[in-house]
Amino acid sequence: MSEFALIERIKRHAVARDDVLLGIGDDAALLAVPAGMCLAVSVDTLIAGRHFPLATSAVDVGYKSLAVNLSDLAAMGAEPAWATLSLSLPSFDSTWLDQFCAGFSELAREFNVALVGGDTVRGPLSITVGIQGFVDPKRALLRSRAQVGDLLWVSGTLGDAALGLKALKAKAGDQHLSLLQRLNRPTPRVAAGLFLRDFSVAAIDVSDGLLADLTHLARRSQVGARVYLNQLPTSAFARSYVGLDDYQLRLHQLSGGDDYELLFTSHRSSRAEIEAGFVDLGLQVTVIGEITADPTVEVLDADGRRFIPALRGFDHFA
Amino acid sequence: MSEFALIERIKRHAVARDDVLLGIGDDAALLAVPAGMCLAVSVDTLIAGRHFPLATSAVDVGYKSLAVNLSDLAAMGAEPAWATLSLSLPSFDSTWLDQFCAGFSELAREFNVALVGGDTVRGPLSITVGIQGFVDPKRALLRSRAQVGDLLWVSGTLGDAALGLKALKAKAGDQHLSLLQRLNRPTPRVAAGLFLRDFSVAAIDVSDGLLADLTHLARRSQVGARVYLNQLPTSAFARSYVGLDDYQLRLHQLSGGDDYELLFTSHRSSRAEIEAGFVDLGLQVTVIGEITADPTVEVLDADGRRFIPALRGFDHFA
Repeated sequence: MSEFALIERIKRHAVARDDVLLGIGDDAALLAVPAGMCLAVSVDTLIAGRHFPLATSAVDVGYKSLAVNLSDLAAMGAEPAWATLSLSLPSFDSTWLDQFCAGFSELAREFNVALVGGDTVRGPLSITVGIQGFVDPKRALLRSRAQVGDLLWVSGTLGDAALGLKALKAKAGDQHLSLLQRLNRPTPRVAAGLFLRDFSVAAIDVSDGLLADLTHLARRSQVGARVYLNQLPTSAFARSYVGLDDYQLRLHQLSGGDDYELLFTSHRSSRAEIEAGFVDLGLQVTVIGEITADPTVEVLDADGRRFIPALRGFDHFA
Repeated sequence: MSEFALIERIKRHAVARDDVLLGIGDDAALLAVPAGMCLAVSVDTLIAGRHFPLATSAVDVGYKSLAVNLSDLAAMGAEPAWATLSLSLPSFDSTWLDQFCAGFSELAREFNVALVGGDTVRGPLSITVGIQGFVDPKRALLRSRAQVGDLLWVSGTLGDAALGLKALKAKAGDQHLSLLQRLNRPTPRVAAGLFLRDFSVAAIDVSDGLLADLTHLARRSQVGARVYLNQLPTSAFARSYVGLDDYQLRLHQLSGGDDYELLFTSHRSSRAEIEAGFVDLGLQVTVIGEITADPTVEVLDADGRRFIPALRGFDHFA
């Protein structure tokens, strides 16, 4: 089967949208951005063996490659619209590709994202997804909006994806399917991002690890942050991980990546409204700390002592 | 040096544009599309050793990775605006990266393209550039607009890049610097694409090879095409390639990729106006054939006989 048959195969899975004036099949797609909205653009590359374990199923690779990009739009409060897919494949494997497309398009349908372009080349397995969405620029969630005294929040629970990876490496994956699911099929918090546009919050998604991503947010806002260790939200699956002591659990929560939860700030007066909103969204949300004037990110344990984790986050070139 | 230092290094080269409301450094860029224009989006991946020879200098890799994307916008008649850059690098090499950025930004400055996002990961060398531009959708150059009886045109000359690659493989590169330049530093025909918006033409850029790309255009327009072999424009550098007979020259012109010239159609009545416009652009343009009703692409030699090339074009998975 040829490159062009492969493109036809991918096209079959595409969601249709009225604002796609011209989709896959020309030199570029032509897309209509609604009046008054600006375009939000992001891109992420996933390399086999680095961003997902080599043993990850094709359907999960497809799912995750779109999910991590949707998560970027969620962290801007943007509404997803279109995506491009650049696939580098060692060989043409129609079974693998069908499963990849099934995973990708499951999420594309859920969030009404039209695939509008892409590229297929032969090379080591890697996937680059570009995503485009809309947001009113005045209401976008920016990393730079944190204010001293703000509450620091996180959606969902932390550390699950890192523990899923740990279980996989220990070949104990079968006992930890829920944690593995969090690693392989992260849920982009798009609805939460859209809800938060009403609160002038700073936000980032947790991809490199809580402390690493909190540091990015704090730097952009020229503030510091304090995190309370015993307030970090923990799933029942993480709690029941046999042989994991509290120190190791907290380390995974602070420094493990791939949770794709929203980390955000808000004025203290918005607390009740935000909590009520997340109840409506059916999503856990937790205040885990606060924004400080001192430009450092610190973690305090239950006794108020500074907790220094061995590892702060993932850096591809460190 | 870390991933974040690397991103800082890339940011230093970025062109500033007023329509970039928020550039590199948040979860997504925020961009303003002018009223009345639609967004043109394309993406291309370059893999080392497949899309450029492994020995290609970093500055040329940087240049070419943006050039091939600009060429896609040129073939739509779109005005370039923004780009994203996803870099997969085997290791952090600051010299290589500075040169890559120099090549990329040389072209970015020339076409006023702002780098608005990207991703750096560790992996086998590959580069994915996403590009965004604007075009009035009513005036875009579409592959589907060819009409039976139209003239078939090509800008510049054909076969130079393929001959540059041939020279490189034969280790005769030093004698063919101009051909190598055409391989490594293709000139995107953006101004020609913008000019052609006035003529309701069908267009595609020649990346896979003349016959392959002409077949794409013909299929989308549900027409055929006839190409006159002795009308294919040939550079002085290609003519002076020692030891190349006419058959081999024509094969490189018909089936060699990477020329990044514009292949387009027009109504016969536009001929003089198009020729005059290209004189103003300082760019050669040649009528090489015509659009036919019979849905095949054929090549006729000087005696009117059908010429069947051994190879039609490049397909990554064929």
